[in-house]
Amino acid sequence: MTLKYYWEDFPVGDKRHAGPVAVRAEEIVDFARKFDPQDFHIDEELARHSRFGTLIASGWHVCALAMRLICDGFLLESAGLGSPGVDKVRWKQPVRPGDALSLDALVLEARRSESRPGVGLVRWHWDITNQLGQSVAELETTGMVRCRNTA
Amino acid sequence: MTLKYYWEDFPVGDKRHAGPVAVRAEEIVDFARKFDPQDFHIDEELARHSRFGTLIASGWHVCALAMRLICDGFLLESAGLGSPGVDKVRWKQPVRPGDALSLDALVLEARRSESRPGVGLVRWHWDITNQLGQSVAELETTGMVRCRNTA
Repeated sequence: MTLKYYWEDFPVGDKRHAGPVAVRAEEIVDFARKFDPQDFHIDEELARHSRFGTLIASGWHVCALAMRLICDGFLLESAGLGSPGVDKVRWKQPVRPGDALSLDALVLEARRSESRPGVGLVRWHWDITNQLGQSVAELETTGMVRCRNTA
Repeated sequence: MTLKYYWEDFPVGDKRHAGPVAVRAEEIVDFARKFDPQDFHIDEELARHSRFGTLIASGWHVCALAMRLICDGFLLESAGLGSPGVDKVRWKQPVRPGDALSLDALVLEARRSESRPGVGLVRWHWDITNQLGQSVAELETTGMVRCRNTA
C-alpha cells in the first residue's frame, strides 16, 4: 500500500475519526472463548444474571476493535513502526451485542526520537464511543512513525 | 465453576504464576487479520524486511494471551466482577512464532471499595516472559473482586 502519512502529518491537536464498526454477539463470544472466558463474556444465560444483564465484550476485545478502527482509519496508510505501549486504558461502559463503535483520536504530543534519527513519536488519546454517543473506553497510546524529512 | 478465591485471597504481595502458552504463527496472523493488519503482523515476507525481521504478534494479541493466562491461572475460579482499566502497558520485546509465554502476577494494592459494599479492588502488576526468561511485556491493571466477608 502507498504510504500517505508520515510523522509530520500528525501534529499536536490533529484529530482523526474512524468507524463505525458493528459488534456482533458471535464475535464477542468467539474472542472471549479464546482469550477471556469469563461467564459474562461467553454465556448469554449466565450473563443475564450478572451485574451487566447481557453479554458484554471483553475489554481487550474493545481495545482490539479500536486498533482495527485505527488501522482502517489511517494507520495502514502511515509509515508506522509499532508502539512501545499504552497508558490509562479506561473501560467506562459495557459494550453489548449490536453496539456500533466509533473512534476519535487526538494527538497529545509529537516529537522526534532522540535515539533514532528519522523516527518520530506521536502520543494519542483515543475515545471510543457507541451508537448513542456514549464514551465506552478511553486510552492513551504512543506510536512510532517514520519521518518524511529525516533532517 | 465453584469459586475458590475472593478479594481476601489477594493481599498485597501475593504472587501468582501462569503458563506457559505457545504462540503459533497462524494465531498471530489470524488475530492480526481481524484486529491489527499491519504488514509485520500478517505477511511473513514483508515482516522479513521490516525492522523486526520476522512476523511478530500484535501487542493487543499479547495482552489477550496474558488475559487468558490469568483466566486459566486463577481468575475463572475467582469472584471477579470485571475491571475498570489498565495502566502502563509496555511492549518491551517482540513476540515471535514459536515463543511460549508465561505470566507472573503480583498484587500491588488491595482495598475495599468505598462506594460498593462487599466489593474489593486489587491492583496487579503483570510481567509476561518468553521461553528465554525475557520480559516481553508488563502492565498494571485493576480488578474488582467480591469479598468473602462483606463486613
